[in-house]
Amino acid sequence: MERITVTNDLSFSRIVHGAWRLNDWNYTTEQTVSLIEHCIEQGITTFDHADIYGGYTCEELFGRAIQANPGLRKRMELVTKCGIVLESPNRPEHKSHHYNTSKEHIIRSVENSLSSLKTDYIDTLLIHRPDPMMNPEEVAEAFSELKDSGKVRTFGVSNFKRHQLNMLQSYLDDKLITNQVEVSAYELENIQDGTLDLCMEHRMPVMAWSPLAGGAVFSGNGEKAVRLRDTLTKVGAELGTEDISEVLYAWILKHPATIMPIVGSGKTARIDSAVRALGHKLSLDQWFEILHASMGHDVP
Amino acid sequence: MERITVTNDLSFSRIVHGAWRLNDWNYTTEQTVSLIEHCIEQGITTFDHADIYGGYTCEELFGRAIQANPGLRKRMELVTKCGIVLESPNRPEHKSHHYNTSKEHIIRSVENSLSSLKTDYIDTLLIHRPDPMMNPEEVAEAFSELKDSGKVRTFGVSNFKRHQLNMLQSYLDDKLITNQVEVSAYELENIQDGTLDLCMEHRMPVMAWSPLAGGAVFSGNGEKAVRLRDTLTKVGAELGTEDISEVLYAWILKHPATIMPIVGSGKTARIDSAVRALGHKLSLDQWFEILHASMGHDVP
Amino acid sequence: MERITVTNDLSFSRIVHGAWRLNDWNYTTEQTVSLIEHCIEQGITTFDHADIYGGYTCEELFGRAIQANPGLRKRMELVTKCGIVLESPNRPEHKSHHYNTSKEHIIRSVENSLSSLKTDYIDTLLIHRPDPMMNPEEVAEAFSELKDSGKVRTFGVSNFKRHQLNMLQSYLDDKLITNQVEVSAYELENIQDGTLDLCMEHRMPVMAWSPLAGGAVFSGNGEKAVRLRDTLTKVGAELGTEDISEVLYAWILKHPATIMPIVGSGKTARIDSAVRALGHKLSLDQWFEILHASMGHDVP
Repeated sequence: MERITVTNDLSFSRIVHGAWRLNDWNYTTEQTVSLIEHCIEQGITTFDHADIYGGYTCEELFGRAIQANPGLRKRMELVTKCGIVLESPNRPEHKSHHYNTSKEHIIRSVENSLSSLKTDYIDTLLIHRPDPMMNPEEVAEAFSELKDSGKVRTFGVSNFKRHQLNMLQSYLDDKLITNQVEVSAYELENIQDGTLDLCMEHRMPVMAWSPLAGGAVFSGNGEKAVRLRDTLTKVGAELGTEDISEVLYAWILKHPATIMPIVGSGKTARIDSAVRALGHKLSLDQWFEILHASMGHDVP
Repeated sequence: MERITVTNDLSFSRIVHGAWRLNDWNYTTEQTVSLIEHCIEQGITTFDHADIYGGYTCEELFGRAIQANPGLRKRMELVTKCGIVLESPNRPEHKSHHYNTSKEHIIRSVENSLSSLKTDYIDTLLIHRPDPMMNPEEVAEAFSELKDSGKVRTFGVSNFKRHQLNMLQSYLDDKLITNQVEVSAYELENIQDGTLDLCMEHRMPVMAWSPLAGGAVFSGNGEKAVRLRDTLTKVGAELGTEDISEVLYAWILKHPATIMPIVGSGKTARIDSAVRALGHKLSLDQWFEILHASMGHDVP
Repeated sequence: MERITVTNDLSFSRIVHGAWRLNDWNYTTEQTVSLIEHCIEQGITTFDHADIYGGYTCEELFGRAIQANPGLRKRMELVTKCGIVLESPNRPEHKSHHYNTSKEHIIRSVENSLSSLKTDYIDTLLIHRPDPMMNPEEVAEAFSELKDSGKVRTFGVSNFKRHQLNMLQSYLDDKLITNQVEVSAYELENIQDGTLDLCMEHRMPVMAWSPLAGGAVFSGNGEKAVRLRDTLTKVGAELGTEDISEVLYAWILKHPATIMPIVGSGKTARIDSAVRALGHKLSLDQWFEILHASMGHDVP
């Protein structure tokens, strides 16, 4: 599988696996190991986490798989996030839902992630959401300590708009290596508002969450969903597939911003569908036909 | 006529002639030559084209005038554009309406423009619209080849917002020399959203399309059109003219972004009206009175 | 009181006094002197003006206090603004409401301010509003002359968005030292649209006008006002105060952009309330609870 180089000694697989709903799948540790091994066999070596996924449980479940099969760790890149505070039985000290990007919170969050994931380093740590209370000097100090101690190799952000990314970057010694944002043929905001343009200006590859738009395209009855589904089905037929998720992935993969879609499924068939998308090459006609179906009108 | 310097060896006339509707005028080649000569006599030496104008016909019609009178070429600057793909009997290979800013398309489009315009160089090539699929590395390669071969002297963009312009510029060796956008007293978007501010930050003069708002001000019955027309008429009376198009041009010309209005008329009287506008100097009171009429309220 | 360093030899007090409504208070010169002395005793040494405040009267009223007690000048920093033109009996030459940021107007405005304020230097001059007709080269020339002559020590802007600030800065030799904008828990625009992010990127402290939202929170009956007032009251109780203005100031003061609230009151009790806010430390839970009450929903 194609790999995306982010630093001299770190690259991601073009398709990333997301552990967002790992807790929902009720897998045994053996099943989780199998899922991870299936991904790696397909070339998907990058796994995306966040401290809060599954109410602070998913890192732990994934970590048990690593513990059961320690050789896995060296064959993968681990991405995780911090900065959101949720009320949860697993974090009784949390009194309300808010953000916390203080130095203390970032470092504590990483310590928890390392412990849960049963690893001694994170490949990439992301600030999960732009925090209106973010003190960039504190973030810079936290990143610096975590890097110096070897606990985190690289840093990035998630859901940042241009001004937020430029502001934080100006306080950091190292380049932020990715911005993980929502992008799909259904959800065009980050394509249209300049977020992807800024990432390209910074030569920063993008990770896409909800690349399938969370199911809206598959089952939605709204005009936009129906219009887009019809067009995806038509283009799929031209490409020789009845699986419109392959077309949705292929649409993202063609974009010049070097987008790595995050596949958040526990089913090997759904994962293979994303991998197959790498083999489809949309024509410009097809790419714009899908864009037009999503927008409801042509480009000017 | 005032000239706007864009590089050491290229300048534009402050008023630009636009060949957008040349095909509609049904001129003989002799009439087109006369029109061009009239422009040049008035000091309008910069002519604006696009591959797609008139369904891919206007460059050809203009080129016949150059062919009939080859001395004209050295007395003018030719601007043309590429990047929009239209379905047209003149481009049977086009299967749908979309954008194409691939290296191959840009170079092929320029070859076509050179052939149609009967010239061996374009003074300025513009990317016609911001393309969500634009690969800036390919654009950079295309520009570089076209410049090295002498086929295009300088490059710019059209209808680009700030993030799009900054992104593309970051991949290019040479400065983009203009951004051609819609600007008029009626259509304030590019004044209000920071597009002109960015051009000023880059010391990049602006070309204005639809400087008369495509007739909306002259004949519109909407509140905004009536309000603006009344104010333009009043200011025109103060300046000693009954021609509100002169006031519309003068309003743009006073803006500090160094805006070159594109006059898209085939009638010498309309062209002369733009030239006369250079002689009007609006006061700040008058400039803001027109702005307020367009916005429907005062500045804060 | 905490001081905010803006250059090697200039700092502001964290709380700034605003003379916007000085004319409305109908103070004798003695009362104005008392007010100023009260501020200075509390550590508030920075006083914010504009040429237009009170219909071009407030600088004069303040200047009488300085004239009556010349020792005051050395104990304070004077900020004033220019660039708005208002019709007023005090400026019979003004024929309409508009902006004027020409070199001539800026310099004339400063001469008037110096004469009214009875001082021979302004610590900081701000361009009051982003002017769509601003010629940045003229502004740069005006600033340069005013600095060289010793009449103005530093320069800033007010109500500028990112593109306007970046554009003007690119023409200036010296850094703009502040952007004075509306910020409060009620009015979040400049927090949400990236204006404060850009100020942080430029390491530029911010002055906040209407930090109490002009009374909307205290007496408004709209859903937002009621919701915010209830939350401020609750948080106030947690902090041990019944004065929600202290909570509003504390909310701003906690923001990492280094915001200096401008207190526009002539009553010592209201001024002391702002000073007391410096002693309150909101928790992150409290800060976000107030944010959520203002937005009407949680952060994502």
